[in-house]
Amino acid sequence: MNEASILLTPGPLTTSDRTRAALDRDWGSRERNFMELTRNLRERLLAIVEGNDEYTCIPLQGSGTFAMEASLGSLIPPDGKLLIIVNGVYGRRMGKMCDRIGRPYQLYETPENVPPDPAAIAQILAAEGEITHVSMVHCETTSGMLNPLEAVAKVVAEAGCHLLVDAMSSFGIIPFSLAQIPIAALMASANKGLEGVPGLAFVICRRSLLVAGQAHSLALDLHDQWEVLERTGQWRYTPPTQVLAALMAALEQLDEEGGVKARYERYRRLCEILRQGMEELGFEPFLPPDLQAPAIVTFKLLDSPAFSFEEFYRCMGERGFVIYPGKLTDRPSFRIGCMGAIAPSDMHDAIAAAASALDDMGNPLS
Amino acid sequence: MNEASILLTPGPLTTSDRTRAALDRDWGSRERNFMELTRNLRERLLAIVEGNDEYTCIPLQGSGTFAMEASLGSLIPPDGKLLIIVNGVYGRRMGKMCDRIGRPYQLYETPENVPPDPAAIAQILAAEGEITHVSMVHCETTSGMLNPLEAVAKVVAEAGCHLLVDAMSSFGIIPFSLAQIPIAALMASANKGLEGVPGLAFVICRRSLLVAGQAHSLALDLHDQWEVLERTGQWRYTPPTQVLAALMAALEQLDEEGGVKARYERYRRLCEILRQGMEELGFEPFLPPDLQAPAIVTFKLLDSPAFSFEEFYRCMGERGFVIYPGKLTDRPSFRIGCMGAIAPSDMHDAIAAAASALDDMGNPLS
Repeated sequence: MNEASILLTPGPLTTSDRTRAALDRDWGSRERNFMELTRNLRERLLAIVEGNDEYTCIPLQGSGTFAMEASLGSLIPPDGKLLIIVNGVYGRRMGKMCDRIGRPYQLYETPENVPPDPAAIAQILAAEGEITHVSMVHCETTSGMLNPLEAVAKVVAEAGCHLLVDAMSSFGIIPFSLAQIPIAALMASANKGLEGVPGLAFVICRRSLLVAGQAHSLALDLHDQWEVLERTGQWRYTPPTQVLAALMAALEQLDEEGGVKARYERYRRLCEILRQGMEELGFEPFLPPDLQAPAIVTFKLLDSPAFSFEEFYRCMGERGFVIYPGKLTDRPSFRIGCMGAIAPSDMHDAIAAAASALDDMGNPLS
Repeated sequence: MNEASILLTPGPLTTSDRTRAALDRDWGSRERNFMELTRNLRERLLAIVEGNDEYTCIPLQGSGTFAMEASLGSLIPPDGKLLIIVNGVYGRRMGKMCDRIGRPYQLYETPENVPPDPAAIAQILAAEGEITHVSMVHCETTSGMLNPLEAVAKVVAEAGCHLLVDAMSSFGIIPFSLAQIPIAALMASANKGLEGVPGLAFVICRRSLLVAGQAHSLALDLHDQWEVLERTGQWRYTPPTQVLAALMAALEQLDEEGGVKARYERYRRLCEILRQGMEELGFEPFLPPDLQAPAIVTFKLLDSPAFSFEEFYRCMGERGFVIYPGKLTDRPSFRIGCMGAIAPSDMHDAIAAAASALDDMGNPLS
C-alpha cells in the first residue's frame, strides 16, 4: 500500500505497487540467485540502448551523481582533457567534480533556454587540440531541455573524442541506440524513467575505456567494479539488494508496457496534458515545445502579488500532488514532472488540483 | 513475505517482516516528511553511541566501503598521516584506499588471530611524530575478532591523534559510548547489527574534523554532505528513500528489543549456540571465545577428504541456511554469521541442518 502523494518531481518518482512488492525479500548478496539477478539486470539495461559486445553495463551503489563522478574519474585519464557542455545545474556540477578529482576541463556554456550548437562544439574541438573527452547532459532537468544528442555525438566522434552522456532523465524515456549514435559512455539511475526506487545507478560504456588504476577513488572505480563483476559475478562491495530486485521488476513492466517507445509515448502524453492544462490556467512554460523533454516542465511563476510558489506547492500537496521548486539561475520558476508510474488520468487530476489550488489562492490572475 | 533462506553471513542479513514492510512506500526526497525522517534517523543513530553536541551523524548513499573511503578522504588532511591497524581484509583495504586517494599512511599489522597491542601502538605513535590519525576495524569480520577498542582509543588520545573506527560489524551490536571512549569518527552501515536493508551507510564524527574542500571527491565529501543537511534538512544528492524508511523501522525494533545491550545479549546467545553446536559436530572455531565478537564465527575446514566447503554450503542451502566462505589469508576456513532478525531457535535449526548436512556427506569425521 502506498500512502504517499503522487510525485511530480525529477525523482525519486511514484513507483508501481508491483515494483515495491519486489522489495519485500532478503537476498544473500553472494548467492547464485542474486548473481543471476545482477547479470540479468546488466544485460537488460544494455539491451535498452542496443549496446553490442563493445559495451558493458556497470551498476554502482548510490545516486546518479556517484555514477557521474565515477565516470569522470575512471574513464578520463589524468592527462586527458574534458569539454563540458553546460546549460544547467547538472552540466555545471561536472565542472565542480573535475575540480575535486583533478581532471582538466573547459566549459562550453549556453543560456538555460538555449541548446548547445554542434557547429560551435566542432569548432572548439578543432581549435583546442588537447580535448580528449566531451560531456553533455541529455535531458537537463534544470530547465527540462532535451539537448541534441545525435548532432553533438556526430561532431564529437568526427573530432576523435569520447562522448560521456548524463542520461539520468532520458534513459528509458527517450529512445536512442548505441548502434546508431557514437556514445563512449552514459550514466543513469534506477529511479527516473525506469521507475525503480532510488539507491542504484549505472554506467554503460565502451569496455576499451576501462583502464586499471586510473580512478581517483576505490569505491568509485568503474574498472575495478566491472572487473570483479565479470570475473566473479559478484559485487565488490555490498550492493543494495532490494533496490536491484525492484529495478528488475520495473524493467519487466517496461517490457510489458512495450519498451522505451511506448514509455516515451506515455510520458509525451503526460507532458502534453501538463503543458496544455497549465497554459489554460495561465501558466507559461519556460521552453517551447520543440526543446521540451517529456520528463519535467519548468513554468514561470505567475506575475501576480496574490501568487506564491510556497502557497501553490502547499495547496497542491493538500490535494495529493508533490511539485518541485525551480532551479533556473536568473528567473523565478517552478517545475512539475511527468515521469513515474502514473496514468494520463493522474495528470488530469493534477491539473484539476492546480485549478482548485488557484481558487483557494483567490484566483491570482483574475 | 520472505521466500528467502536465513542469511548467516556478514550481511546483508535476514531482516524482519516489519522492516521490509517499511520499504513499501514512495517518498518525495525533498518533502517535509522525508526531511523529518532523515533528522530523526541521524539523531537516533547518534544516541545509540551517546554522541553529544560535539558529534554529528552524516548518512551517505552506498555501502559501508563508501563511508569508509569518504571518511579517509574527508577527515584526514592531505598533509596528515594515518596509522592503519591491520589484522584482516578490512584493515588492509584502508591502505588500498589511501593509495588511491593520496593520503600518506603506514601499517601496524598483526596476524589474523592476534589483536593489536595498545602498548606497541603507543610506541609507534611516540616514535613517528608525524602520525595524525589512527584507524582500526572494531570487529574484523575476516576472522570474527573483536579488537580492543577502549585500550587502543586511550593510547591514541594520549598521543594527541584522532581515532577512526570501522564499526560496520559492531555498531548496534557491541555497547560502547562516545562519552567514555575518545573516538574521532566511526563508520557503519544500515544492514548489519541494525538489521536494516543495504544501500545506506553513515559516519558519526566530531564536527571539528569537518573541513570544507578537503575531500578527494565530491560525492564522498562528508563536509559538503553534512553542511547541506544541516543548512537545508535535505540530502545533496538523491537518497535511497525506502532504505532510510526501513532503517527507521529497524531502529524502532532495536529500541523495543531493549537497545544495544539486549541485542548484544541475543547475538551473544546466537554465537554461543553456534560455536558450541558446531564444536559438538567436530568443527573447530578459529578464535578462542575471549577474542570472538558475536557477529560472525570463523571455523576451520574439517580435516577429512570427505569434507568440502562447497558441498557443505550446498547442503546447508538446501536446508534454508546461507553460510559464507572464509577469507583468512593462510588457512582454509568458512564462516557462519550470528547477526540478523533471527531467534535462538533459528540457530538451533541451523545446527541441526549442519548435522544433517554432514550425514548427507557421509559423516566425514566418523
